[in-house]
Amino acid sequence: MSAYKVLTEQAAQISDILNAISVLTWDARTQMPPGGAETRGQQLATLSSLAHERLTGEPLRGALESAEQEISAGDTVQQRTLQHVREAVDLYERLPPALTAELAHLKTVSQGVWQEARRGADFSLFAPYLERMVGLNRQLAEAVGYREHPYDALLAQYEPGMTARKLQDLFSYLKAGILPLLEKIRSSNQEPRQDFLTRNFPESEQRAFNLRLAEGFGYDLSRGRLDTSAHPFEISFTRQDVRITTRYDRHFLPMSLFGTLHEVGHALYEQGVAPELTRTALTSDFSGLYAVGGASYGLHESQSRLWENLVGRSRAFWQRHFPELQGMFPEQLGDVDAETFYRAVNRVSPSLIRVEADEVTYNLHIMLRAELELGLLDGTLKVSDLPEAWNAKYEEYMGLTPPDAATGVLQDIHWSAGLFGSFPTYTVGNVMASQFFEAAKVQVPDLTHALAAGDYAPLRTWLTENIYRHGRTYTPQELLERATGRSLDVAPYLAYLDDKYGDLYA
Amino acid sequence: MSAYKVLTEQAAQISDILNAISVLTWDARTQMPPGGAETRGQQLATLSSLAHERLTGEPLRGALESAEQEISAGDTVQQRTLQHVREAVDLYERLPPALTAELAHLKTVSQGVWQEARRGADFSLFAPYLERMVGLNRQLAEAVGYREHPYDALLAQYEPGMTARKLQDLFSYLKAGILPLLEKIRSSNQEPRQDFLTRNFPESEQRAFNLRLAEGFGYDLSRGRLDTSAHPFEISFTRQDVRITTRYDRHFLPMSLFGTLHEVGHALYEQGVAPELTRTALTSDFSGLYAVGGASYGLHESQSRLWENLVGRSRAFWQRHFPELQGMFPEQLGDVDAETFYRAVNRVSPSLIRVEADEVTYNLHIMLRAELELGLLDGTLKVSDLPEAWNAKYEEYMGLTPPDAATGVLQDIHWSAGLFGSFPTYTVGNVMASQFFEAAKVQVPDLTHALAAGDYAPLRTWLTENIYRHGRTYTPQELLERATGRSLDVAPYLAYLDDKYGDLYA
Repeated sequence: MSAYKVLTEQAAQISDILNAISVLTWDARTQMPPGGAETRGQQLATLSSLAHERLTGEPLRGALESAEQEISAGDTVQQRTLQHVREAVDLYERLPPALTAELAHLKTVSQGVWQEARRGADFSLFAPYLERMVGLNRQLAEAVGYREHPYDALLAQYEPGMTARKLQDLFSYLKAGILPLLEKIRSSNQEPRQDFLTRNFPESEQRAFNLRLAEGFGYDLSRGRLDTSAHPFEISFTRQDVRITTRYDRHFLPMSLFGTLHEVGHALYEQGVAPELTRTALTSDFSGLYAVGGASYGLHESQSRLWENLVGRSRAFWQRHFPELQGMFPEQLGDVDAETFYRAVNRVSPSLIRVEADEVTYNLHIMLRAELELGLLDGTLKVSDLPEAWNAKYEEYMGLTPPDAATGVLQDIHWSAGLFGSFPTYTVGNVMASQFFEAAKVQVPDLTHALAAGDYAPLRTWLTENIYRHGRTYTPQELLERATGRSLDVAPYLAYLDDKYGDLYA
Repeated sequence: MSAYKVLTEQAAQISDILNAISVLTWDARTQMPPGGAETRGQQLATLSSLAHERLTGEPLRGALESAEQEISAGDTVQQRTLQHVREAVDLYERLPPALTAELAHLKTVSQGVWQEARRGADFSLFAPYLERMVGLNRQLAEAVGYREHPYDALLAQYEPGMTARKLQDLFSYLKAGILPLLEKIRSSNQEPRQDFLTRNFPESEQRAFNLRLAEGFGYDLSRGRLDTSAHPFEISFTRQDVRITTRYDRHFLPMSLFGTLHEVGHALYEQGVAPELTRTALTSDFSGLYAVGGASYGLHESQSRLWENLVGRSRAFWQRHFPELQGMFPEQLGDVDAETFYRAVNRVSPSLIRVEADEVTYNLHIMLRAELELGLLDGTLKVSDLPEAWNAKYEEYMGLTPPDAATGVLQDIHWSAGLFGSFPTYTVGNVMASQFFEAAKVQVPDLTHALAAGDYAPLRTWLTENIYRHGRTYTPQELLERATGRSLDVAPYLAYLDDKYGDLYA
């Protein structure tokens, strides 16, 4: 057997363990009775330590070294497979086990404290834990290594190739486009009608309609399923079993509807990975010990945003599908037409809560968080000054001041879970989505007509060919350049926002 | 750290892996989309090999030897923990890896062939696979070792302490009691009314009623859940998460009803294990690489049978609960009373299909299978003669001849799955159930009154104290002797059958 083959068999087993971890995670979030939480935590910890052991063990290192000698320069899949495994092996060599253990422990404890603090809107409870979390993440950044800014090391966990400097450039361009647009929208004084969105929409009919759209996009239910959970997510156990969840509010139709379309975007990515990449390092993040087929968090998010927003919140989409929705809810939507519905689900309104934000203000929520993270990490912002800094930024970007810490600085779980560097991937995803969509419109003949006719196969095929099938074979930058001919470019996204919202708020 | 502590930490991790395997198995049987089957199989194979590796690796052996030196004779839990791990370690040392691999492979293939053969009622398709399966099981018996009969080695996988000789004695006593009883029932020429059982009972109401009974028995839904699957089963991922499934036939009420009570019996056993045995070798079958809290298959089955039959098919039970059932189904059961219902769900009728059998004929189905297995294993029965031998036994015991192989020799999955030696545990379970129940009635004051009043706590408490809480600490024989003062005794079971069916078919 070739050394490469030995290595891939070992990688397949690690991939199996990571997929098993995902099954246990999905079960814990959708099916598990409450009594099972503690022992489930122990099962997950054991499986993680097994994957880690395999990845750092002598057999894998030996196989990796032999395979690196053996492989020729020509084969991209082989090259990248070795590169991913090598990066993970080297990363774990640099990470002090004591730091990893301390971080894992702190993450568990600190999420509980954060919940408690948010319940009482009391930042002072959470502050000492956040302090430790920032400290450990600084140590993590030092151990991982970086060129310019400690934040670079953390960003790289989620978005390989992204740096603090690139992010700051990106943000400047975005703000230069979004802030004037928001001012224009505000001064237009238009208030699209939304009253009908809060009528009574029974859950089972919401579910049926969402599933019909999901299947229309191409979500394959013979390799997937839709469940309910408190926080919607997508998770896969190889491309053969890619599951999504949503949540329902009987009195707010958009929640499950756009939530489902968002997760379907993630799911199409995972279901579209080439079969031959199954159980390889190109469908698992060995460095993060997570089974995932996408190239990065940002790239994954670009697909959820593309299907949710660029397709699912477009005028053409609702001209096509509103009659079906109206047929499902004739009483609730009898006095509404497609254009009114389209305007309702695209209303722009600065708010305090990120997860409820519209397309225009969403990135402002992200950018201010990233700016605060940068300050915390390089020491220019103290944890004790964070609530004030948070409120100041909300006042600056949105013209709003949180009434308390629960709707302010304590609203997201991310920092308590140690996820420094993950927020920016949401904005990177928005930018990439428009760049890919623009390229698809140029490259796929009659794409606009197909979409208007409710035919999503041409778009999905282009995305599969250019993105999905490659799994983690290429970096986000490479995928962007191969598919669009350019590196990350904010222009298509700003043009999209300007066109769409300039029209809506003329 | 003490050597014993080192050992138990290693055992806890193996236990975690076995529990993770159970989660993946449960998911595959209740939730997984069809496309996931192949990669799920790979995930399960990897986790099994990880558990096997840990169990046979040097670290565990070393810890085991040190712990064996260290432990004093006084502590039963410690002694038995070491004994279980030692037995597993020694067993895996005796098993040739090539045999294990060949068996695992044959099991997968042969179940597919069996399904195919059963569909076409064509035994000749399955015969060569069964031949190989018998051969490999003979090799397995030789590798495991036995004193008298190769079947002993196979029985011991499911029922430690049971042997072919003991089984043949047990069967003689049983037949001497059951065959005359069956003759008496037949000659009574009574045909209890059953027409109402096949009326229209909507699934959701069946489920609600079954769940109410399950909770009444003491099944804790904060540590469990009820799902639907083609073949009902109970499975646990520690005592904190013990799940059951059932199946519904809208036109046959008893299927889901008694199926649920049966699985609840298994679940009460698992939920009743002492918390301190969680993640130990006393709640996992390390030899069988299976996470289970019960002492043996027979003992587990004794609890499902006890709750399903001795409690759930008793006159007192239906006098108490029939009004509730009638309240749930007023139209379907309006013309029925408790006694009529009790008689309907206890009708005795010799049949060809094991899974539909009543309490009196059930053991005949089992005994004839065990007798055939014995013959196959010691070579006195050839696979080619099996269909004829099967039919002859059905004629002898039931007075019936199968019209084809599908309803005859091909009806059970067990042999295709290599489960030689597991059938007898169903009968052992029946016998044990009556022995325990008789002891409980003697030892628990007013137990009969409590049961008649629908108060199941005293019985459950006695069973928990005497059986459930011990997990695998004691052997089935020890549990029987501690709880009932006797070794396995067929008398209580025969007395129960005689009393109940003598009365019903007077």
